[in-house]
Amino acid sequence: MATKPPAEAPASKAAPDAKRRSERSRRAIYDAALSLVSEVGYGKVTIEGIAARAGVGKQTIYRWWSSKAEVLLEAFVDLGEQAAEAAGEETGAYAALPDTGDVAADLKLVLRHTVDELLDPKYDAPYRALAAEGVVNRELGEKFVEKLLEPGLQLYVARIESAQKAGEIRADLDPRIAMELFVAPLAQRWLQSTGPLSHAYTDTVVDYALRGLTPR
Amino acid sequence: MATKPPAEAPASKAAPDAKRRSERSRRAIYDAALSLVSEVGYGKVTIEGIAARAGVGKQTIYRWWSSKAEVLLEAFVDLGEQAAEAAGEETGAYAALPDTGDVAADLKLVLRHTVDELLDPKYDAPYRALAAEGVVNRELGEKFVEKLLEPGLQLYVARIESAQKAGEIRADLDPRIAMELFVAPLAQRWLQSTGPLSHAYTDTVVDYALRGLTPR
Repeated sequence: MATKPPAEAPASKAAPDAKRRSERSRRAIYDAALSLVSEVGYGKVTIEGIAARAGVGKQTIYRWWSSKAEVLLEAFVDLGEQAAEAAGEETGAYAALPDTGDVAADLKLVLRHTVDELLDPKYDAPYRALAAEGVVNRELGEKFVEKLLEPGLQLYVARIESAQKAGEIRADLDPRIAMELFVAPLAQRWLQSTGPLSHAYTDTVVDYALRGLTPR
Repeated sequence: MATKPPAEAPASKAAPDAKRRSERSRRAIYDAALSLVSEVGYGKVTIEGIAARAGVGKQTIYRWWSSKAEVLLEAFVDLGEQAAEAAGEETGAYAALPDTGDVAADLKLVLRHTVDELLDPKYDAPYRALAAEGVVNRELGEKFVEKLLEPGLQLYVARIESAQKAGEIRADLDPRIAMELFVAPLAQRWLQSTGPLSHAYTDTVVDYALRGLTPR
């Protein structure tokens, strides 16, 4: 990113009107990037095309971001923040996982929701484009992990730690690795299309991981 | 693929000399594609560039493949076949997993080997390029799964079925899903760089998946 986008700039630096205008431009740029990737494919999207669709000058985009991949990344970060705001969260972009005292039920609920999000055709093309770029572009991949993936994965870590305290999950396990047994199968099916995504599938993964594969 | 590459054509259709020549061209094309992706990056590789490096006409490439991604895919299929031949296998491109009667040890051995392969700098860039293309290009992604991923995954399925017969793994599990608990965490760390790959990591994943996360 060339410089920080306006949402991260201190509010005091801009007059209220200017801040509202740049907030509107920023959202228009995100919407344009997401739509264009769906419509023409990531390879054919240009900064110029995003600027034209968003009704801003391309210098406005270059001032805040250095590539179309970075625009897409920030668009998804913004979607996460909007979803958190809509859910009434005050703690930032990411809510906590449900904690009803039944870790299996809580994990199944969240993974079912993730399946639904991944199957939403509106975001399929741009999210795939971003993930694919992260596979081959180390710098973008690191930002993708830091800004989008890891905050979500840490919610699973926290939920597993809570289950460890409650005696539902073994206390000697590394929660960062344990979490991957639930999340990675879904991620691989989505990224590599090695199998269909469904609620029944993620439910089964949770059951297998919690109980283990060996007889008891 | 435009037409089948010569290795798949019946041997009787080509005179021995012609067959040797086209076999040599095919390997030269694979080597050129793998090297060029490492040297200049996937985005800058062209069919023309591969042809020039391999010392063949570009029509030779277009006769067998329709894109650089398909050339890369066949190059990795060929590497797998070569590795199987070197291992003295007669049954085709893919060997069976070891079956010593200790499913944990066998899975750890194979996953450690996979970690070593994924960390081999020689194939990192081209394999990432192919995987990334599969994320966004449905047709190529399906071929990637069919020709490269699924044959390997089926070896895990067969090993788990053998462990089910031996009573080492619960008989009521779907082996295709059970297998993903071992394989997907490694795949996600490699694809999304969400954590480091190591033998200790895959060993831990095998232990967690087999025993399960809940106290017993």
